Amino acid sequence: MKIKGNIIVGQSGGPTAVINSSLAGVIEAARDAGVKKIYGMHCGIEGLLKEDIVDLNDHIKTSQDLALLRRTPSAFLGSCRYKLPEIEGNEAVYEKLFGILEKYNIEYLLYNGGNDSMDTVKMLSDYAATHNKSQKFMGIPKTIDNDLPMTDHCPGFGSAAKYIAASMKEIIRDNAVYGAARTNIVIVEIMGRHAGWLTAASMLSKGPDCDGPDLVYLPEVAFDPKDFMKRVKELAKKKHSIVIAVSEGIKLADGRFVCEIEGESGKLDAFGHKQLSGVGSYLASMITAETEFKARSIEFSTLQRCAAHLTSLTDADEAYGAGYLAAKKAMEGNTGMMVTIQVTSRKPYIVEYSQFDIHEIANVERKVPQSWIINDGTYVSDEFITYARPLIIGELQPHFAGGVPAHITLE
Amino acid sequence: MKIKGNIIVGQSGGPTAVINSSLAGVIEAARDAGVKKIYGMHCGIEGLLKEDIVDLNDHIKTSQDLALLRRTPSAFLGSCRYKLPEIEGNEAVYEKLFGILEKYNIEYLLYNGGNDSMDTVKMLSDYAATHNKSQKFMGIPKTIDNDLPMTDHCPGFGSAAKYIAASMKEIIRDNAVYGAARTNIVIVEIMGRHAGWLTAASMLSKGPDCDGPDLVYLPEVAFDPKDFMKRVKELAKKKHSIVIAVSEGIKLADGRFVCEIEGESGKLDAFGHKQLSGVGSYLASMITAETEFKARSIEFSTLQRCAAHLTSLTDADEAYGAGYLAAKKAMEGNTGMMVTIQVTSRKPYIVEYSQFDIHEIANVERKVPQSWIINDGTYVSDEFITYARPLIIGELQPHFAGGVPAHITLE
Repeated sequence: MKIKGNIIVGQSGGPTAVINSSLAGVIEAARDAGVKKIYGMHCGIEGLLKEDIVDLNDHIKTSQDLALLRRTPSAFLGSCRYKLPEIEGNEAVYEKLFGILEKYNIEYLLYNGGNDSMDTVKMLSDYAATHNKSQKFMGIPKTIDNDLPMTDHCPGFGSAAKYIAASMKEIIRDNAVYGAARTNIVIVEIMGRHAGWLTAASMLSKGPDCDGPDLVYLPEVAFDPKDFMKRVKELAKKKHSIVIAVSEGIKLADGRFVCEIEGESGKLDAFGHKQLSGVGSYLASMITAETEFKARSIEFSTLQRCAAHLTSLTDADEAYGAGYLAAKKAMEGNTGMMVTIQVTSRKPYIVEYSQFDIHEIANVERKVPQSWIINDGTYVSDEFITYARPLIIGELQPHFAGGVPAHITLE
Repeated sequence: MKIKGNIIVGQSGGPTAVINSSLAGVIEAARDAGVKKIYGMHCGIEGLLKEDIVDLNDHIKTSQDLALLRRTPSAFLGSCRYKLPEIEGNEAVYEKLFGILEKYNIEYLLYNGGNDSMDTVKMLSDYAATHNKSQKFMGIPKTIDNDLPMTDHCPGFGSAAKYIAASMKEIIRDNAVYGAARTNIVIVEIMGRHAGWLTAASMLSKGPDCDGPDLVYLPEVAFDPKDFMKRVKELAKKKHSIVIAVSEGIKLADGRFVCEIEGESGKLDAFGHKQLSGVGSYLASMITAETEFKARSIEFSTLQRCAAHLTSLTDADEAYGAGYLAAKKAMEGNTGMMVTIQVTSRKPYIVEYSQFDIHEIANVERKVPQSWIINDGTYVSDEFITYARPLIIGELQPHFAGGVPAHITLE
């Protein structure tokens, strides 16, 4: 292929443990193709608009740098949550952006993110198509939420799923430690407001040495508090350690988020402000109020997206592959597409990469199939485990220094 | 040495990532000495009182079993929070216990735990001394809180510290991801109600690639909310990502726990009950109420004691060593003592094991030295880092199966 100019890459939205593996893939593809300048947007498209860009050849020089980059969580270049405006009526924004691209002789733009970020790729490629611009725009999928369509799964999900499964397994053992002397109930609140992929990943803790969570509640089905309490009381007759996985986004049948109920009932914090505590803490309070059992909640919080010390090697390699191929495809003349991962066999696990029209991807959410949600919406079937197991296999071992994982920084 | 009977081992109190490494040490010491029966108390001394004991030779047979045992978090045998009563007036309890020991020809009892558990060793050895009993009782130190006296540090602390340091480093990177576009403040709440060792361990995240937490609050010094807010506002003028480590046990100058203030001010949960939220969530609410910045809190919760996937090899090896030596010392005729770890050199790191009279250990808490707490009680000095760094070095790699760490179970 004939390289026509320089390349720029941006990272966008919430970070993952492997978003920098995709960045490493882009850098190596550009180097392999002999691209002169490899630019990075500092804090995504918002940074590009301010001409805040870095020369990646100044920062990632050696193979050791690349190896550390792949082991560094959060977005190395910084990220943003910024959506480009409609083209019509906002031509000035686009003219400015394309002016910056032209100033730096940038011919290829790669953008790594989730649904909103794919919208950016769509807008830029649409503008180029209608304004006689030569630049190529490709999307690299990234989201722990695993909710992008047209791809079997998304880079970032596997590592978050591995962290959740391993931590859930440890919590389940810890919670059972006092045996029959106490009944211990723990609610584990997991990210994913609209799609239950991450909450379902708690089921990957299940195996010959672990029963897995007792109940699993995804946002794809309505949550019934009465049925929940009935099930908890039934479980407490049979066992002393109960562990329940809930998505932060579970809703009542009337559409309200469960975590909103409390706010509506007027709970105030110590400073007199209405407060939304998490759904985990809400359900634990409910159990403590309605039974003789103590319940508490655990939130994985941002650790589920940044725990690079437990990165799935499969996930990291696919993130790298998606980044590499997105750059390669752009340099071959493709534009307005996102790289996708297709699984041609789950056992043995075999993937192919492809690319798909960005118009069918941007702003679309993919949810857990209803048929995988069983036991009246309180559990997840083995079909999910078959789907997700290969994605958490292998470990990208951190490079430890002083007992903690070493990272690489932009400064 | 001449072996006079069988051995029994119990695990007590909150578990750690390496309590089962101490169990492995006891088992191997007993086997090396040719002890016939190696019993385990099911759920500590509470289980022993019910004659609920297991034959460990039935459960831990191969070297592969021992390797998995060392990689299994939580107490393999189950634990308890049970304190033996005063001997005087409760002789029946002790007669029952010693009767069970005699029934199984148990001559050596090892008990692995923290302050309360060392009290059990004290009571049993005191009873034996005054009632002409031949059995030997030895304590094995264990606590993530690191607050046992007479030992340089406690098995369990190093692994919790490693988890906290690594996770803190990941959180600090994640929190900075949006650059100058937003000011993100996060409060990380860390265990240790009376001693700040674990909170101080957040400082181990600091290095050439990480600034570490901006403020660190230990329970050893009084917490001043006004000074706290002043410092947060000052920091927010200089940087956009602020990360603060606080112990769950910080107190006001008048002695009240900070996490109690809210309950006193009458905060009710959705079910009308007084609620104590954590200090992290309280301080985050305070920042959000008094500034234009958003703040949120993260709790490591039980993960800091059960995250065996990030076990410190130094810690695991010392836990094993303490278990092995406690058993050996008991078989050599010692009683009423706890094994201690003495560090003869920190660079290079060299340890010696010793043992100490249990009467000087039981129920005594060791705190972080005041001289290590600097900047008006808002930071921790390099002396702590010199002390703690060797304890988090090395990794006991999990045995992964299906993408998650494999464990061994009693059933």
